[in-house]
Amino acid sequence: MSENDAVLFANDAFYQAFANGDYDAMEELWATGYPVTCIHPGWNPLEGRDLVMATWKMVLSNPSSQKISCLGPKTVVYGDSAVATCYEEIGGEMLVASNVFIKEDKKWVLVHHQAGPTAMEPTPDLDLEGGSGQIN
Amino acid sequence: MSENDAVLFANDAFYQAFANGDYDAMEELWATGYPVTCIHPGWNPLEGRDLVMATWKMVLSNPSSQKISCLGPKTVVYGDSAVATCYEEIGGEMLVASNVFIKEDKKWVLVHHQAGPTAMEPTPDLDLEGGSGQIN
Repeated sequence: MSENDAVLFANDAFYQAFANGDYDAMEELWATGYPVTCIHPGWNPLEGRDLVMATWKMVLSNPSSQKISCLGPKTVVYGDSAVATCYEEIGGEMLVASNVFIKEDKKWVLVHHQAGPTAMEPTPDLDLEGGSGQIN
Repeated sequence: MSENDAVLFANDAFYQAFANGDYDAMEELWATGYPVTCIHPGWNPLEGRDLVMATWKMVLSNPSSQKISCLGPKTVVYGDSAVATCYEEIGGEMLVASNVFIKEDKKWVLVHHQAGPTAMEPTPDLDLEGGSGQIN
């Protein structure tokens, strides 16, 4: 598996944990040995694993949370870090997101997430299978 | 200057170029040897230096663009990559932003930017001078 595919896989795992409301899986996807930050839609920037994971616990355990789908993920690998961008469809609303990963103990883990609203939709020529560049 | 300070400096330079409508300065702040991506507020994710810089030229040359200020920048350095988060105040509206940097030829340059609306304001206990962790 290329590094690019490995990042796409980690990005998909993030959205699977999100869609399944699976906090344990979500917790494993975030870095433990590096500082993490997160900007939920409309929120302020959050710093630190304890605070970030507490908010994920709240989001994932909320029974009124809408189903989420990740569309059109694209990744770029920069050595031991990577940026994934994608659309998030939640309850009929479209968001755009940035997910930043680093390689920790040979595994790609999240160190940062931001999602916010977009007026755009994924375009038909968007490569919905993901892909993109890789620099090592 | 610590790596953390160097990233804060690059982040400040980004907002100075933005505030001054200085396209030439903006162009120098983005990576040339690595793929770049950008998500302007409400837009779709943009890929590739040519497209990203074309949108900055449009944004910076728009005479109706509002003045921008960066508030409460925080950075985390992960070796040769770094994430900065901050608030952006534009024409009385508050946004939150993620700026991802990598070290290219010993200089911290942007490879990704996302900004989107927030309902929050920088809190009084926010360290407006910036700062944060560093991992090398």
